[in-house]
Amino acid sequence: MIITLPQPYLLFLGDVTSARYAKTAFGLRDWAPERCVGEIALPGTTITTNLPRLSPLEAYQRGARALVIGVASRGGMLMPSWIPTLVGALEAGLDIVSGMHSKLGDQPEIRRAAERLERKLFDIRTPPSDIPIATGRKRSGKRLLTVGTDCAVGKKYAALALARAFRARGVDAEFRATGQTGILIAGSGVPLDCVVADFVSGAAETLSPDAAQSHWDIVEGQGSLSHPSYSGVSLGLLHGTQPDVIVVCHELGRETLMGLHDFPLPSLEETIALNLTLAQRVNPDVRCGGIALNTADVSDEQARLAIKKYRLQVSLPVADPMRGGPELDALVSSCLGG
Amino acid sequence: MIITLPQPYLLFLGDVTSARYAKTAFGLRDWAPERCVGEIALPGTTITTNLPRLSPLEAYQRGARALVIGVASRGGMLMPSWIPTLVGALEAGLDIVSGMHSKLGDQPEIRRAAERLERKLFDIRTPPSDIPIATGRKRSGKRLLTVGTDCAVGKKYAALALARAFRARGVDAEFRATGQTGILIAGSGVPLDCVVADFVSGAAETLSPDAAQSHWDIVEGQGSLSHPSYSGVSLGLLHGTQPDVIVVCHELGRETLMGLHDFPLPSLEETIALNLTLAQRVNPDVRCGGIALNTADVSDEQARLAIKKYRLQVSLPVADPMRGGPELDALVSSCLGG
Repeated sequence: MIITLPQPYLLFLGDVTSARYAKTAFGLRDWAPERCVGEIALPGTTITTNLPRLSPLEAYQRGARALVIGVASRGGMLMPSWIPTLVGALEAGLDIVSGMHSKLGDQPEIRRAAERLERKLFDIRTPPSDIPIATGRKRSGKRLLTVGTDCAVGKKYAALALARAFRARGVDAEFRATGQTGILIAGSGVPLDCVVADFVSGAAETLSPDAAQSHWDIVEGQGSLSHPSYSGVSLGLLHGTQPDVIVVCHELGRETLMGLHDFPLPSLEETIALNLTLAQRVNPDVRCGGIALNTADVSDEQARLAIKKYRLQVSLPVADPMRGGPELDALVSSCLGG
Repeated sequence: MIITLPQPYLLFLGDVTSARYAKTAFGLRDWAPERCVGEIALPGTTITTNLPRLSPLEAYQRGARALVIGVASRGGMLMPSWIPTLVGALEAGLDIVSGMHSKLGDQPEIRRAAERLERKLFDIRTPPSDIPIATGRKRSGKRLLTVGTDCAVGKKYAALALARAFRARGVDAEFRATGQTGILIAGSGVPLDCVVADFVSGAAETLSPDAAQSHWDIVEGQGSLSHPSYSGVSLGLLHGTQPDVIVVCHELGRETLMGLHDFPLPSLEETIALNLTLAQRVNPDVRCGGIALNTADVSDEQARLAIKKYRLQVSLPVADPMRGGPELDALVSSCLGG
C-alpha cells in the first residue's frame, strides 16, 4: 500500500555540472547517509557528494541494492546519455529508483534490461493503487505534522530535523514522507501530490497507522491551507494525519505566495488558527508546538534576532531546526510536553 | 480540457427492476428532459422513465447522438447481458456514455465495435489529462457554489434548482457540473473526485472561466470541509471556484456524517463561518446567500416548520429548492442581490 524502496543506495549524478540540479543526491547524503554507499557519475560531471565513487558492481558488493537517480534533468526526462550506466546498474544487481516525470519503464532499453534481469524499476511519482477512503477513526500513538505559511518553506527538513531531535532525546519517532525526496530519504512513503483527490486523507491515514502510545510519527507537510493552488492537498493531509501537534513552518522574508505574487503570505497567527480550527475536527486536543523558521538566507545574527522577534510575536517557541541550539530544544520540549 | 458529451441522449435502463438502481436515468429525465429523446430497456425491466421506448435507430432518427447508461450495476461493472444492445447502439450511429467504474473500452466487443464504426466511448469518471495547476487569478463574471454540512445532502440538485430559478428571472446562469450525474445533465464538466489532488483547484478554475460581468456560474459542490474523508476536494473546489456567493446545503434530520457516524454534523453557523473564512482567501467579498434545506423525507407541513426554524436560527433565507415557493424566491433574491 505504501511504497517501500530497496536500500542502501548508489547515488547517480548523471553528467550535471551544477549542484542545483542534484538536490536529491545532496538531500540523501545529508539526511540518510547510512543509506548511501557511494556515488556514480558520467564523464564531465563537476559535482560530488564526497561519497566514494563506485562502479555498480563495487556498490553492490558494499551492500547497495538500488541506484537512485539523484539529479534532475530539464523537463524531468531520462537523458539518452544515462542509459548505458543505468543498464549496467541493473546488470550488477541493482534496482533503479526515480522521481522523474518520465517513467523508467517507458524507456525500452531499460524496461527490457529490467525484465531480462528480473530487476525492479521504482517510479516514486506513481502512487500505490490500493489506497482506501479515509475513515476518520482515531488511531493510537502520537502525530506531529509540519504545516506551512506557503509551499517550499522547509516543511520536509523541519520534519526530518524534529524526528532526529526527538530520537536524540530517546523518543521513539519516525519521519513519514509525503513527497518524492522525503520518500527517498525515508525509504518509504506516499507521493501525496500524485494521489487522486478523493484518496488524499486515506493515504495520510495509511501513512501513519496505529502505533504504541509513546510513539511519534513526524509527518512531512505539503502545500499550505492558504495557497489556492494546493490547499486541498494540505487539508486532506491535515484531516488524515489527525495531528496531536502542528509545527508551523515559515521562511524568513517571504512576503507573497510562491508562484502567486498577488497573494500576501498569511500571518503566523492566522496560519496557526486556521490549521488548529480545521484539525480540531479530527482531534479536539490538537495544539501548536511552535514555529520552524527557515533562516537559510541570512546571517547567524539576523537569524537570532528574527527568531527572538517571532517568539515575542506569537508567544510560542521559535527555532530554525537546521541551526539547532537551545531554541530547537525549546521547540522540541514544547512539542513533546505541552 | 473539459469533458463535452454528444447529445441528445437515449437512456439505457439495462434490465434493472428497482428505481434505486436507475438514479442516473431519472435524474436526466427530471433535470435535462430536453436532452433525452427516449429510453431503451432489456426484457424483464420493470421500471420506466415514461419517455418513449425507442430502438437505437429510432432514437438516432429523432436526433439522439449518444446512448447513456442510466443504471448502476452491483460493483459498477458492465453486465454481459447489456453488450448486444450497446453494440447495436454503436451500429445505429450513437456514441456511448458511461459513469461506471469499469471502462467501456475494457470490454473487447464494445471496443472493437466502436473502432470499426468510428464511434466514441465516453467514460465520464476519467478526468481530462490536461488540467492546469490553479493560478488564483481573479476571473470576471459571478459564481455561486453550493457547499454542504455533509456529503450527499443535495448540493447538486440545489445548484440545478438555483440555476433554473436564476434563469426564470432572466439572469444569464449556467450550471457547472463536478460529478458524474451532473456532467450527464449539463452535457459537460469535470469529475472532480477523479482528478489528481494537485489539480483540483485548477480543474475548478477551468470549469468556470472568465465570463460577462452579469453572468453567473452555479457550481455543483462536492463533499464538505467538515468531512474528514473528502474535505480536501471541498477546499480545492472552494479555492478554485472563487465564489461570490455560497449556499449551504443541509439535509433535515441528518445528525452524523455519512459513513462516519462517530462524527456529529457541524452546525449551519459553523459551516457558514468555515466556508466564508477559507473562501475569503480568494474573494474577500464572498458572502452566504442562505441555506438549501433538503426536506425530501418529511411532509409539507414538517418542511414548512423546519424551514421557518432554521431561518430564525441563522437569520438568512432558507428554502428547499426542490419545493420552490416564496422561500426559494427569497433565497434567489438574497443570492443575486446581497
